[in-house]
Amino acid sequence: VAEPQRQTPAALGEFGLIAALTARFAAGGAALLGPGDDAALVSAGDGRIVASTDLLVQDRHFRVAATSPRDLGHKAAAVAMADIAAMGAVPTALLLGLAVPADCDAGWVTQLADGLNAECAVVGARVVGGDVVAADVIVLAMTALGDLQGREPLTRSGARVGDVVAVCGRLGWSAAGLALQERGLVDEFPELTQAHLRPNPPYRQGPEAADLGASALIDVSDGLVADLGHVATASRVRVNLASGALAPDPEPAAAARRLGDDALGWVLTGGEDHALVGTFPAAVRLPASWRVIGTVEAGPPDVTVDGSPWPGAGGWEHFRAPGLTGGHGGGPA
Amino acid sequence: VAEPQRQTPAALGEFGLIAALTARFAAGGAALLGPGDDAALVSAGDGRIVASTDLLVQDRHFRVAATSPRDLGHKAAAVAMADIAAMGAVPTALLLGLAVPADCDAGWVTQLADGLNAECAVVGARVVGGDVVAADVIVLAMTALGDLQGREPLTRSGARVGDVVAVCGRLGWSAAGLALQERGLVDEFPELTQAHLRPNPPYRQGPEAADLGASALIDVSDGLVADLGHVATASRVRVNLASGALAPDPEPAAAARRLGDDALGWVLTGGEDHALVGTFPAAVRLPASWRVIGTVEAGPPDVTVDGSPWPGAGGWEHFRAPGLTGGHGGGPA
Repeated sequence: VAEPQRQTPAALGEFGLIAALTARFAAGGAALLGPGDDAALVSAGDGRIVASTDLLVQDRHFRVAATSPRDLGHKAAAVAMADIAAMGAVPTALLLGLAVPADCDAGWVTQLADGLNAECAVVGARVVGGDVVAADVIVLAMTALGDLQGREPLTRSGARVGDVVAVCGRLGWSAAGLALQERGLVDEFPELTQAHLRPNPPYRQGPEAADLGASALIDVSDGLVADLGHVATASRVRVNLASGALAPDPEPAAAARRLGDDALGWVLTGGEDHALVGTFPAAVRLPASWRVIGTVEAGPPDVTVDGSPWPGAGGWEHFRAPGLTGGHGGGPA
Repeated sequence: VAEPQRQTPAALGEFGLIAALTARFAAGGAALLGPGDDAALVSAGDGRIVASTDLLVQDRHFRVAATSPRDLGHKAAAVAMADIAAMGAVPTALLLGLAVPADCDAGWVTQLADGLNAECAVVGARVVGGDVVAADVIVLAMTALGDLQGREPLTRSGARVGDVVAVCGRLGWSAAGLALQERGLVDEFPELTQAHLRPNPPYRQGPEAADLGASALIDVSDGLVADLGHVATASRVRVNLASGALAPDPEPAAAARRLGDDALGWVLTGGEDHALVGTFPAAVRLPASWRVIGTVEAGPPDVTVDGSPWPGAGGWEHFRAPGLTGGHGGGPA
């Protein structure tokens, strides 16, 4: 009996690897034509399509030793589809641009595909196409498409003075999970580790926010202060957060005590949970899934906490390591 | 007077670089909402959207020393939009996922953006969004969207026995340009060098093929034999090419004489010109832009030349260097 062979993309060939992937990605749902041709065909019910691209680069956004390919597939799809939800739309389709070393394990790639599929299934989306090439490091380029189903898009520029700021989803969990990973303590708080490896964006609350009459919406990818800074700048308003409403959840609070770290800092500047944060007219009755955390005020575009600038770093910038930003006094101004 | 400073992404910051890019990419045309928010909004006139992703990796698909960022922008957009045309659709929007070293020249990035814009302008498409991250090597992830305008999509699987095979666009030019580049002779045949750096896909002939009644269509990205191999496999037919109809154009023929190379090999196996090759019912009267080069026959899925297998390599596979494929006797079988 022959030994089972570890199949590399070089052994399978590009077309073999593509065949292994396309076998996993079937048409259906919004995918009128799935993978396997020059391009996919996706339904766009109301005559418009929402589209967003995100890149994940090995050793910048993930480490192969620290994540399973299946978790990475979940995360890559979540990162991309959260942007669609943040427009008030329903994610319908995903395209995967994948660069992998020619000598990597093809099983790693197919498990990544399984993770993408599983995360898409959460919202009924499909992987409809993509590209696979060789490179020295792994790069995932995810393009998500979505359907507004007749809704107006929720942008960053619609916040109005007098609106309330409300959030749906986790804050500080992924940052706590990353801090635990960096300290080698992934086993002590498995829920936080899992939250970092596989974020759980509240996809359905994007369209819900639109239906509730939200004036602006964004997903928390870079950090609450940083991302609300984009809303403040685009809407030309000041966003004032109430620290009393930002009490960390028990899990990150416990991890912060264990690490001697600051859980409120994770809540304010930790990205990657892909919570949705929006602004709503004060008269809107928000369901329990939304937590009011601040107000929109007149003033120079900025984000404050209890009326004062937050002294921590403003959030994650891809080209600046935390040590290079000056660390304190930053913020999105 | 201060010296003009070379601005790096690290100095500009991610948000600064994104601002420099979004300033170049404006909404308009099919871009209902352009870059600057969580996602773009693109019109999809007939309730469907065609979507395709392509990756270009530094030192695999291009060399920074051998191409200007502007040419690379043209090429990246062309690679992606040719896939849209190959479905019979009109390209309408492009998303750019860009990984660049943090210490690269921001001017290189903005010139790349100018090239993307200029190529999009050829067909009236817009750059509507994307992502910018840091990485050790440059990776471009291009997602193109397109509008079928009510047409049925042209797939690879529709070729029927008795159809004619016809091509529109250049064959062998890009391969000749690459061969010249590798031999340091870029100045002797500037048109071929230019064809390699900046392909010129016949975008409008994609929808034209659909309107003419084409049964299948594909763009020649991997090589004529390899790409028609995909059609043969998907359609379960044999594609037989007539060598007499494949005479190389005078420019690649002259370059082949200069290099002692085989111009017909470039025509049959050179990719990257992004010509469109389709199959049409024999009764279709083709305009002069289309050149009949073969017929669709019954038989095992394969591509033959004058009834025999082509003895050269089948085309470009990303995971196999030419020296690893065995070189001869291949073909898409």
